[in-house]
Amino acid sequence: MRAADLLVPWPSVTLDTPAIEAAKTLADADLPGLIVVNGQGAPFAVLPGTQVLRLAVPSYCQDDPLLARMVDEAAADVFIRELGDRTVRELLAPQPSELPVVASDATALEIAALMARTRSPLVAVMEDGRLLGAVTLHGLLDRVMPA
Amino acid sequence: MRAADLLVPWPSVTLDTPAIEAAKTLADADLPGLIVVNGQGAPFAVLPGTQVLRLAVPSYCQDDPLLARMVDEAAADVFIRELGDRTVRELLAPQPSELPVVASDATALEIAALMARTRSPLVAVMEDGRLLGAVTLHGLLDRVMPA
Repeated sequence: MRAADLLVPWPSVTLDTPAIEAAKTLADADLPGLIVVNGQGAPFAVLPGTQVLRLAVPSYCQDDPLLARMVDEAAADVFIRELGDRTVRELLAPQPSELPVVASDATALEIAALMARTRSPLVAVMEDGRLLGAVTLHGLLDRVMPA
Repeated sequence: MRAADLLVPWPSVTLDTPAIEAAKTLADADLPGLIVVNGQGAPFAVLPGTQVLRLAVPSYCQDDPLLARMVDEAAADVFIRELGDRTVRELLAPQPSELPVVASDATALEIAALMARTRSPLVAVMEDGRLLGAVTLHGLLDRVMPA
């Protein structure tokens, strides 16, 4: 089995997509992350869901659990508003590590090795420089588990 | 809103659960990870799904994409057998970082800050030293997104 047999369609965002829209996509579809494509439709980055929170949660709350605890419940409920009009560009870590991207003929083992190495439960599949879809950890395990 | 309002029941495993059974649970239920509890039912670790792959994929394949590519497709399809009779104990990273665990009265912001800090899309909720359930990134975003 190859990446082309395992992939599912996947929503992509661009660097200019509003961060709040990216968060909405994650919330609506229960995805482990989003794929960021460039102007040519090629995968540029994979954005884990938790990265969206890094922009929404004030850094003093991320650094110190006690400070996060001091924010009252009403204010805590609306923390996502902090995303404001920021874009996906600002969600990306400054130093992108190895990109979880494979060609459509990658084997199940190659995909698993890449997920293990990058700790990404989501791998983008590309062909001819364009995003075809994604393989998820769940989709992969589902196919490789002995019956 | 508090952790108690956001939590969902969550399957737990112990250190002695066979790794292949943990993988099966992840495959069947589409979970971002598993919660490992000790003999008293208290959360001990959170095991991201990709960690299961780290034991199943031979380390030479994780380190070198070219070596992973050299394994033929038939052998690549059955890599999960490498888990053999190993247990969850062997899946855990030797140096556990901060544990994504909150009390049942933690606010949405506290949970978000913890997810951002630990990069875990899954937070265990405990009360009186026992696991109550978990809050997922998806469950959290779903509740905090403005309509």
